[in-house]
Amino acid sequence: MVKVGILGIGTVGESVARILLENADVIEARAGRKIVPVIGVVRDLKKPRNVEIALTDDPMEVIESADVDIVVELMGGIEEPYRLVREALKAGKPVVTANKALLAYYRYELQEIAGSTPLFYEASVAGGIPIIGALRNGLSANHIESIKGIMNGTCNYMLTRMIVDGVAYEEVLREAQELGYAEADPTFDVGGFDAAHKLLILGSIAYGIDARPEDIIIEGIEEISSTDVEFAKEFGYEIKLLGIAKKVDGGVEMRVHATMIPSSSMIAKVDGVMNAVSVVGDRVGETMFYGPGAGGDATASAVIADIVEIVRGNSGPMLGYKKGLESGLRLVGKEEIVTQYYLKLKVVDRPGVLAAVTSTLGEYGISIESMLQKPSTLADRVRLLFTTHSCREAEMLAAIEALKALDVVDEKVTMIRIEK
Amino acid sequence: MVKVGILGIGTVGESVARILLENADVIEARAGRKIVPVIGVVRDLKKPRNVEIALTDDPMEVIESADVDIVVELMGGIEEPYRLVREALKAGKPVVTANKALLAYYRYELQEIAGSTPLFYEASVAGGIPIIGALRNGLSANHIESIKGIMNGTCNYMLTRMIVDGVAYEEVLREAQELGYAEADPTFDVGGFDAAHKLLILGSIAYGIDARPEDIIIEGIEEISSTDVEFAKEFGYEIKLLGIAKKVDGGVEMRVHATMIPSSSMIAKVDGVMNAVSVVGDRVGETMFYGPGAGGDATASAVIADIVEIVRGNSGPMLGYKKGLESGLRLVGKEEIVTQYYLKLKVVDRPGVLAAVTSTLGEYGISIESMLQKPSTLADRVRLLFTTHSCREAEMLAAIEALKALDVVDEKVTMIRIEK
Repeated sequence: MVKVGILGIGTVGESVARILLENADVIEARAGRKIVPVIGVVRDLKKPRNVEIALTDDPMEVIESADVDIVVELMGGIEEPYRLVREALKAGKPVVTANKALLAYYRYELQEIAGSTPLFYEASVAGGIPIIGALRNGLSANHIESIKGIMNGTCNYMLTRMIVDGVAYEEVLREAQELGYAEADPTFDVGGFDAAHKLLILGSIAYGIDARPEDIIIEGIEEISSTDVEFAKEFGYEIKLLGIAKKVDGGVEMRVHATMIPSSSMIAKVDGVMNAVSVVGDRVGETMFYGPGAGGDATASAVIADIVEIVRGNSGPMLGYKKGLESGLRLVGKEEIVTQYYLKLKVVDRPGVLAAVTSTLGEYGISIESMLQKPSTLADRVRLLFTTHSCREAEMLAAIEALKALDVVDEKVTMIRIEK
Repeated sequence: MVKVGILGIGTVGESVARILLENADVIEARAGRKIVPVIGVVRDLKKPRNVEIALTDDPMEVIESADVDIVVELMGGIEEPYRLVREALKAGKPVVTANKALLAYYRYELQEIAGSTPLFYEASVAGGIPIIGALRNGLSANHIESIKGIMNGTCNYMLTRMIVDGVAYEEVLREAQELGYAEADPTFDVGGFDAAHKLLILGSIAYGIDARPEDIIIEGIEEISSTDVEFAKEFGYEIKLLGIAKKVDGGVEMRVHATMIPSSSMIAKVDGVMNAVSVVGDRVGETMFYGPGAGGDATASAVIADIVEIVRGNSGPMLGYKKGLESGLRLVGKEEIVTQYYLKLKVVDRPGVLAAVTSTLGEYGISIESMLQKPSTLADRVRLLFTTHSCREAEMLAAIEALKALDVVDEKVTMIRIEK
């Protein structure tokens, strides 16, 4: 019998304890041994919980207990779980965590501390989708060319409602909050930070890149309007919040932002709260992994899969690499990334304006792929929409500043990156 | 250094040898040890090969060689590879195979013989998609509710051309043969047998069902016409060749056949030669795994992933279960399956005929969900299209016989099963 202690009995912790009991038949048959949740840590012992295990408010009691074989960390936060996971590993106990923020900051330190003690984290990226296993094991023969993931269900739900039903951003955010998909302060989701934490984890497994959130472009969907969604369609694109990690000459680009992707691509078809990660390997081609990215039971499904792997005696290198890649791969700087762009400008409706705009873009070496002119809500203004050929982010940012400085261009210029 | 011997240097064998050499950097970094292909078995030593390893025409030389640590079986056929894989396992050598036919017949025997020696087979189902790993490891916390897979790229290519471009079956088959997607004798693909082999393997991992091809419904796409494809759309469905394994009251249904699935479902959006497997777990909900199901490099990607797992020292139970499920699960008989159906009949165009048809269906307890009447190419005939509510296969087959026996109904009645 293998005994599990759970640090943090919230939604996911309750699901882990419950599923271990309710699905004990199939879990034992697959693991080869009975797996039993024995104790959970809560902050407030008086609050009623929907679990039938012993409770304590002292995490060290769980970590130090001779009665606990595997420690599951589901607390949230960063520094406190970091301390406790280290304690558990030092006590030689295998750890399973769903804590993406912890791993976004401390995964390499934890890999070092863990040594040969298993530290598994399937649930930290894309909830119930076994993407970590796919990337660490299933695609190990490949140089990974790119990863493109819809890894935040809240944003995907909101964008889907905007795309399919034409609902405005503010309205759909309120709706997402009412449905419990978005927090009262939605910044962590809609600002792209949640997706960025997940992307950093995948970037380590795919490329061995040791980066932190502050090292990469992180943008959200706050600036996306229904008009952009509509115009994107006319160019043949859908707008999704993507986490992108991509091998290019000279390194690996990593970035999270609202992205225009061809409507015909598989990942463009992923709607609602669902997540999906598309991985292109140099040998396998494109694979995609789709499923629920959140929810107590879906996340617990991934946590328990890790527990089963530990019980079976499997380990594998925590971050996918047993040795470093000799050649190494460096993270491409934020302004060095190269991609195509969509630009939306409001300009004065008079002859010569289009020439002024396009020649400004030309000055920065940016060439236009396609252009649309649309009526504006203001009588003396028109909207200009461009998609550009590939250029460097630095040039694009400079060109946008130059465009804003033109008399004939209104202050607000919308830029959305395109991925093909 | 780990040395690999390959039984069968065909397209996949060449890819395995080549990728092990060309991607040696990333494979060694992930596995922790160098993995080197040392010898391959060919039937004809004189035929030129595109590999830089030693060749022999004697498989036992590879199996018995002290210089070979892992045996990869890529021969095709059933009895001969069965004999050789047993020999390799008896010699204590881990085996990786991509041979779905071998596993469709002998997987339980092989599990028995292998004991604790690893016998991996990720490449046997859906080529480069790591679906075996997902099912065996990533979803191990779940009772599997259903598996629905597009597992034959040839059929999916053909159906996509029929659906998207309205090309007729015979023409698209010729085209698939020219492109190398279909064999000169296409029966194994278009008859559903290839997909059935893969489904049987997944059925073992998901449910522990020990069935062979002759135990399950296996139908292909030979009877599907452009009209069916077109009419399916009017009812809101796409037609795909699906392998279905599904938990129902009293057991597990397993079957391969052309299937109407709602156009809005994720798996309906999988086009061309791509494969995809949708798995619904009782805790995780729906997940889907998408990618290339065939091709030398894609298949080799899965073969090498297995080799890396073996080198890392991971094993896990070959067929997903370390112990049997105490309750067990039985395979539902072919005629006991319950589903919805689409029926297409050609009938004489005169009053009372519709009543005769619907009352015949009623006699077998089959109730109609929706009905369409369409003009026929023959002047005195009309086409009747039905979708039915769920009923047992036995009743449906009997009802079809009774319909055919009616004077007013033409001999050929088309039946396509529906999955929602």
